Amino acid sequence: MIVVVVGVPGVGSTTVTNKAVEKLKEEGIEYEIVNFGTVMLEIAKERGLVEDRDQLRKLPPETQKEIQKLAGKKIAEMGKEKNIIVDTHSTIKTPKGYLPGLPIWVLEELKPDIIVLVEADNSEILMRRLKDESRNRDLESTEDIGEHIFMNRAAAMTYAVLTGATVKIIKNRDNLLDKAVEEMIQVLK
Amino acid sequence: MIVVVVGVPGVGSTTVTNKAVEKLKEEGIEYEIVNFGTVMLEIAKERGLVEDRDQLRKLPPETQKEIQKLAGKKIAEMGKEKNIIVDTHSTIKTPKGYLPGLPIWVLEELKPDIIVLVEADNSEILMRRLKDESRNRDLESTEDIGEHIFMNRAAAMTYAVLTGATVKIIKNRDNLLDKAVEEMIQVLK
Amino acid sequence: MIVVVVGVPGVGSTTVTNKAVEKLKEEGIEYEIVNFGTVMLEIAKERGLVEDRDQLRKLPPETQKEIQKLAGKKIAEMGKEKNIIVDTHSTIKTPKGYLPGLPIWVLEELKPDIIVLVEADNSEILMRRLKDESRNRDLESTEDIGEHIFMNRAAAMTYAVLTGATVKIIKNRDNLLDKAVEEMIQVLK
Repeated sequence: MIVVVVGVPGVGSTTVTNKAVEKLKEEGIEYEIVNFGTVMLEIAKERGLVEDRDQLRKLPPETQKEIQKLAGKKIAEMGKEKNIIVDTHSTIKTPKGYLPGLPIWVLEELKPDIIVLVEADNSEILMRRLKDESRNRDLESTEDIGEHIFMNRAAAMTYAVLTGATVKIIKNRDNLLDKAVEEMIQVLK
Repeated sequence: MIVVVVGVPGVGSTTVTNKAVEKLKEEGIEYEIVNFGTVMLEIAKERGLVEDRDQLRKLPPETQKEIQKLAGKKIAEMGKEKNIIVDTHSTIKTPKGYLPGLPIWVLEELKPDIIVLVEADNSEILMRRLKDESRNRDLESTEDIGEHIFMNRAAAMTYAVLTGATVKIIKNRDNLLDKAVEEMIQVLK
Repeated sequence: MIVVVVGVPGVGSTTVTNKAVEKLKEEGIEYEIVNFGTVMLEIAKERGLVEDRDQLRKLPPETQKEIQKLAGKKIAEMGKEKNIIVDTHSTIKTPKGYLPGLPIWVLEELKPDIIVLVEADNSEILMRRLKDESRNRDLESTEDIGEHIFMNRAAAMTYAVLTGATVKIIKNRDNLLDKAVEEMIQVLK
């Protein structure tokens, strides 16, 4: 099983994932969580192309594409031995626009079974970002957040059509983290 | 002509389709309506793989994929001799998330000309489901119904980009069935 | 660089593009704006297939597809020598539904780097269409306009997944044209 988990920054997708994986472990179901960007970085380092994540972003597009492919392939290989959760983004908001996290050349290697979109209300996400003092995020309006969620859904559905994966939307609402975790567990079981 | 007609459960896409096809027949325009799932079932039965629809869902994913492809191919063949309406779903809501009704390997065989999304307001759909005593559906909230309609649109647009088909949205509003039927007729003409 | 700029009729995407290109020229950055439909028409004329745009639309679908591909290829070739903006549509609203402006066979040739969606509120677009006496447009409701914007976003995100392009949404709000132009300049730089 390869499950991709995505969500806009601040929605809490990592928290939901970690808690669900922890509980499943108690039931004897194991998942390994891998971060797509980290796998890319490892591959680029091994090849002596970069030393850190910043350098990764500055590589020529064709090289980045090649590393993305290799990361997809590596994770797909891992998925043959155990259950994998890929922690990544449906789209990444960049100054040039929304960049798809899983372009077709990654999907063709990765072949995910399920894509989980963790969502919350725009205003809930805004408040969580405001409270998160550990990170220095650019503040977006609720409208901008809504736009990002829209594009994430559209991208995820395209991923599904290209691979046959399902797209599961899990709401991580304020004070209802347990509910989100429970839904995630049901998806991962 | 191959026209795919889709809609969330309870929206009335089958009713609109049947009425439009009936009226077109009076004008001498013939369409054959085929249900994608039924064609799959026939193919699986012929091959001695299953005896009913439940067993179909339990086949290994690779076998299901193969049968989907064959169903797409068979309908495309039928489409060379006559006008075909394919009754199916843009996405199917499953416990693991929204499953695309026409993944890329089906689209590549089926090559539809038009995809018709039959829609209504979330609350109209909710009320129609409540009134439909013949079926024992899980009740969804209007928000959930809106989410499903969203994913159906996104999937349909992806189908269009991959095939060049158009996506026609027809609203089947309360007390305005005739209008929806008339729009469907214009699309099928 | 190949940048595709799209927007629903009346949103002002051409105005925003022209102004941005003009200002960039002053800074020494050159972009050539090409209209996808015009390139198609030129190709069809060269081959003696048509004399005007109306005839283009009446060509057999397979011929149109071939011309679309050739147009994509031609623009991609131009893009190797200079920066190109492709003025086109994400989806075209036709009586048979939303037709994708960049189906997969065009994308595979064109390989755009950025897709810019110029958007405004549904009611702003409606008012602009009402004021535009130079064109005899069919009037759409604000709901219909919203539907078109939705499908444009979904199509654009699919284009991005298939090519790795980013999708930038620029709002061209009433009395804030300068802001839209400035955002476009930042994308094109």
